[in-house]
Formats: sequence, C-alpha cells, structure tokens
Amino acid sequence: MELRGTGDLAVVIERATGSVQILDTSSRTSIGQVKGLGDLSHASIVYSRDARYAYVFGRDGGLTKIDILEQKIVKRVIQSGNSIGGAISQDGRLLAVSNYTPGGVKVFNSSTLELIADIPAVGNNGLRSKVVGLVDAPGQQFVFSLYDAGEIWIVDFSDGKPEIRKFTDIGLLPYDGLISGNGRFYIAGLFGEDGLALLDLWNIQDGVKRILSDYGKGQRKMPVYKMPHLEGWAITDNYAFLPAVGRNTVLVVDRNTWKEVKQIPVHGQPIFVMSRPDGRQVWVNYAFPNNDTVEVIDTLTLEKMKTLKPGKAVLHMEFTPRGEHVWISARDNNWIKVFDTDTFEVLTTLPAKKPSGIFMSSRAHQTGL
Amino acid sequence: MELRGTGDLAVVIERATGSVQILDTSSRTSIGQVKGLGDLSHASIVYSRDARYAYVFGRDGGLTKIDILEQKIVKRVIQSGNSIGGAISQDGRLLAVSNYTPGGVKVFNSSTLELIADIPAVGNNGLRSKVVGLVDAPGQQFVFSLYDAGEIWIVDFSDGKPEIRKFTDIGLLPYDGLISGNGRFYIAGLFGEDGLALLDLWNIQDGVKRILSDYGKGQRKMPVYKMPHLEGWAITDNYAFLPAVGRNTVLVVDRNTWKEVKQIPVHGQPIFVMSRPDGRQVWVNYAFPNNDTVEVIDTLTLEKMKTLKPGKAVLHMEFTPRGEHVWISARDNNWIKVFDTDTFEVLTTLPAKKPSGIFMSSRAHQTGL
Repeated sequence: MELRGTGDLAVVIERATGSVQILDTSSRTSIGQVKGLGDLSHASIVYSRDARYAYVFGRDGGLTKIDILEQKIVKRVIQSGNSIGGAISQDGRLLAVSNYTPGGVKVFNSSTLELIADIPAVGNNGLRSKVVGLVDAPGQQFVFSLYDAGEIWIVDFSDGKPEIRKFTDIGLLPYDGLISGNGRFYIAGLFGEDGLALLDLWNIQDGVKRILSDYGKGQRKMPVYKMPHLEGWAITDNYAFLPAVGRNTVLVVDRNTWKEVKQIPVHGQPIFVMSRPDGRQVWVNYAFPNNDTVEVIDTLTLEKMKTLKPGKAVLHMEFTPRGEHVWISARDNNWIKVFDTDTFEVLTTLPAKKPSGIFMSSRAHQTGL
Repeated sequence: MELRGTGDLAVVIERATGSVQILDTSSRTSIGQVKGLGDLSHASIVYSRDARYAYVFGRDGGLTKIDILEQKIVKRVIQSGNSIGGAISQDGRLLAVSNYTPGGVKVFNSSTLELIADIPAVGNNGLRSKVVGLVDAPGQQFVFSLYDAGEIWIVDFSDGKPEIRKFTDIGLLPYDGLISGNGRFYIAGLFGEDGLALLDLWNIQDGVKRILSDYGKGQRKMPVYKMPHLEGWAITDNYAFLPAVGRNTVLVVDRNTWKEVKQIPVHGQPIFVMSRPDGRQVWVNYAFPNNDTVEVIDTLTLEKMKTLKPGKAVLHMEFTPRGEHVWISARDNNWIKVFDTDTFEVLTTLPAKKPSGIFMSSRAHQTGL
C-alpha cells in the first residue's frame, strides 16, 4: 500500500453482501472492498479522529474496525444481539453502541474494542428498553433515547467513568434522535404521539420540552411507509427543514421559535431532508413507492428548484464536506451516482452491490454524526 | 514512512527559521520538521482535499507545497514579490494567492503549481492595488478586496476560466476580509473609515452594504497597536463576537441585524476572537503589551469566565475540529501549549522556534479558511 491522505475517502455500505467499498472522492473511483461484516441491513459508520479507521455498526450487533488504508478488518466483535447505531466520543477514544436486544448502551475503547462500560437501559418503569437516537455531544457525552420507557439519558465520560443523567416522561415511544451540528440541541422523534422532545444541553436544568405539537401522524393517521430519519435534518441559518411524517410535505420551521413557517409540497413521503453544507439547498429523498426521485429545495425562496431521478430505491445522499458534489446510492440499480450540486450534472456512476449509506471520512471532525 | 491517516495532523509555522513543524494532535507530539520555506513572518496555510498536502503562503511571495506524510517539500515557486495569503477552491484544484507587489491575484493548479490565471488588481481609479482578504467561496469562487482602490471582487472559476465581478466604492482602505463559515457573507474591515463592508453572496444584486457604522477607530483615534484579524471572528448561533479596533473591548453583535448587543471589557486590544467549534465559548488573544494573556468568554452569559497566561507573545490559537482542545503558540517562549477547553488544564507543552500560526488538517474540509 502506498502512502496517501485520508481526507477524501468514503465508505459505502453494500447491504446485501455484508461488505463495504472504499471510495476516493477526488478521483471519483472505488479503490477497494472489505468483506465479512455480517448483517448490514441497517448499518452506520463513524470514523477515528485520524480518519484512518471506519467503525461499522451492523444490525446483527457486530462492531467492526476497518483500516481504510490497508483495506482490511482490524478487529470485529459481536457485542449484542441486535444493534441500531453508534457514536464516537469527542476525543475519539470511546465508541458507544446502542442496542435493542438486550436494550442498552455498550462503550468500547476505540483502539482495542475492549468493553469499557455496559449501561443497561432500565427505565423508570423497571423494564429494559430498546435504545435509539444515540449521538455524541461535546464534553465526552453521549445522548440517547429509551424507546419503551420514553426517556432521554445523557452519559458523561469526562471523568473517565460514566455519570448518567436521566430525563423521564419525555413522550411516548421516542424512535430516533438527532443533535444539532454544534452539539447543543438534542431532539427525539415520537412514534406514540405527536410533537417532538427537545433537550437544550446548554440549559439542562430546564429539562425536556415539547416542540411542534402538531408534528407526527396527527388525527388523520395517514399510512406511514417509513418513519423519516432524524439524523439528516437540515438546520440552516434561520430554518430547520423537517420531513413531515406520512405526508408528502417538507416542513419549514423557525429555528429560534420552533414554529412552522411553511409547508412545501413534495413528491413523496420524505425520508432524508439534508442541507448542502453551505445551507443554500436542501435535498430530499422519499419512501417507497416514490423512492426513485430526489428533489432540491432553494432555501432562500423555500420553493422546489430541481427534480432528479438518480435510480431505483434511493437510500442515502452524502455531500462532499465543502458541498460541491453529492453522492447518491440507488439500491435497486446497484449503483452510486455523483452529482455536481451547482449544475446537477451526473459526474460519475459507480457500481455497488445494493448500496445504502455513504459515509465520508470528514465525518471524523464533526459532532453528532 | 509508515501508512497513517492524515485527519489528526497539524502544521505550525516557525517564523524565524523559515520552517514548519508537523504535529500529531492525537498523541500531542511533534512528528517532523520541514525547512527551506523562506520568509514566514506573515504566513498562512491551506490544505489539499485529501489532507495530505499543506500549501504555505509566505510573505516573500513563496508558495510551497509540502507533503505532510513524507515530510518534505514537493514543489516551491516564488510567485510574486510580496504576498499576504491564499485560498484553495471548493473542489481543491485551484490555489489563489493574493499579492501586494505587484498587486493582484495569481491562480495555480494545486497539483503542479502551474500558473492558470494572473489577475492584476487594477481598480476603477486606474491604479494597481494591493490585494487583501482573499477567501474561497462555494461555486469555485474567490472573493477579495483591493486595499488602495476600495473595491471587492468576486472571481468565478466554475466555467474553468475566470469571470470577474467588481464592486466599487465599498469604503476606504479595506485591510482584511472574512467569509462566514457557510460561505454566504463576505465582510471587509476598513482602515480608512469607520464601519464594515458586507457582501451577501446569496444576493449579490443587492451589492455591498455598510454595517456597524461605529466600528473602527472612531472619533477618539486611539493608538492601534495592531489591527485585529478578521478571519477568526466568532460567529455563533445568535451573535457575532468582534474585536473592537484599538479598544480593550469585544463587541457582541446580533447576527441578523448587525446591531450591537453588548460591549465586553477585556484585558487588551483584541487580535483574534475565536469561537470554540460548538460556539459555547469565545477565546480572545491581545496585542502588545497584553499579549501574554488569553481570555475566555461564556457565550450564554456574555461574561468573561476564565483568564489564562499561556506565555509571552501569544500569536495564534487553533481548536481541534470537535473542540475538546485548543493549541496556542507563544512566540517568545518558543513553545506551543495544548489546553483542555473544558477544564482549562495544560495537557502538553511542545518546543517550537518562534511559533506563530497553527493549522489543523481538518481545514481541508472547511470553506473560507
């Protein structure tokens, strides 16, 4: 292997084959593949702070450390029966994994994958809960939600051992969570009722508040093909752009008051609503049966400006860190397309086996991804 | 040389010896030195998009491409008589350098350092002007100011060749410029009059506006030991924190209206007023004779929360990308200190010869640095 920088590399999940491809986003080529990663049907990735190692969280509870320079598995552990995602601490030394079965969070040394802490998610109701919406936050913290118990927990590792702070009765069945890019606001989506739970980490004494009380399935109980992802929510200078649940709508919300500013009609039930890094555009993909389409919203006019058809079953979009390109995976076409975000031209099409999430190594330097 | 990731590397300028050190911000050690870079008395650095190459812009007009993995100079050109700084295009392919003598901007291929465009800065007054405040902006643009002519120019390379848009009569003697982190607002500081010139790149048809009409030396014409740097201006969710010119004050300004919210009295004339990446703290260093001190401002209370004495002649501060540490150079102590931004503890002290700017490789992924 030759020396090379790791700032322009990416990893894409090939969900059907338990493999990943390593991509070079400068030459826009695939430079390798790593196999043997288990069930990747709902997998995600975080990066070491030197952007050399990718940690893959698999649905089967597998946690795999990949060396993207040597293109090989460094270590792999099966850490639970069923996991949903993970996060890496601010200093890069701790990996936290959120688990469904048994419900809880396990924390590992990111260098050795040795277990450091095992935190069972036993809620105020005395029952063990699934854990969802796990994110990292500044100050060596992890924040997550207890699905069955309706709680949000903060675990602080700044003194080396876990110190837990619990917020109970935050709402029924939190199913996912996100943290704002600066690591201040943690928001949990609720499956069991309308509204969202907001925790301001700069003012935790204020506790969890309910915002956007209309947000959710509402009275009409529309069929929801897939609950939208929260992680991708676009938060720009003035607005947050949110996928409405079960409706062909993107909601524009004032970022300071959390009041609705506008409803933008779109092509389908939105899944990811993602901001180009400069905030000038928001890109949206959709649930089945409208998942062949991506639409682009102009964040100044709050109108749709472009419709694209990247392929069948568009699962994920990842912007280059400075926003000039976006990489889009189309599962059922077995390809990834790279678009210029200015001209909307397709620059490259790369083959991949049932591609889903695309993760660029610049994530190493960001909070809450 | 062994394989290694480049996400956690940094380069520090050693101004007296024309050298740089390469730093590992994970182990907090120096891993090498590169010499022969000419006059680095006012030098800056940008990174290639793979975070392998550092481009050093020297005061003597030297432009040097350093391989931080192999720790050697790849190529060095003397591109003008006297230069002040540079920027790298959104796609990483173009390097722009701003020059005093002769005044203008030269644009190079970042791979080969071949000259691609030479843009003399001849203002509306027919005279060739010094160029200052050069930054990159989304859409393959560079933005800069003409000191003598009082103009702001945008050069757009999205079609391969430069297309120039000029804004004249923007104010007297713009001496520096900055662009907001999202690449939207370009602000030039004025040496010849009070106020600042603001260009909204999302609405360029509105032209350049004057903001903060009191900002500057004002009526009293205090002795100004050193004009503050604009690049480091802290722009958080709600506020911008600005160094007052010639006064022992940090100004807090509403980010939407550009009206002053508060004046915070500080220890000296501020030079850099920099936000921790999460926006929870603002760190300030000072001009001579108060340049042994750094103060930290709490951005919720808008009060000073900590005073530090990192050494004699504190020239620069650089946060790790996720904000857990800050690296501070103290020129006259010949050292760099690494502080924990939570506990304010000194984690490491590293020797360096007259250190000034510290540049982390994660800058590769950011706009306008």
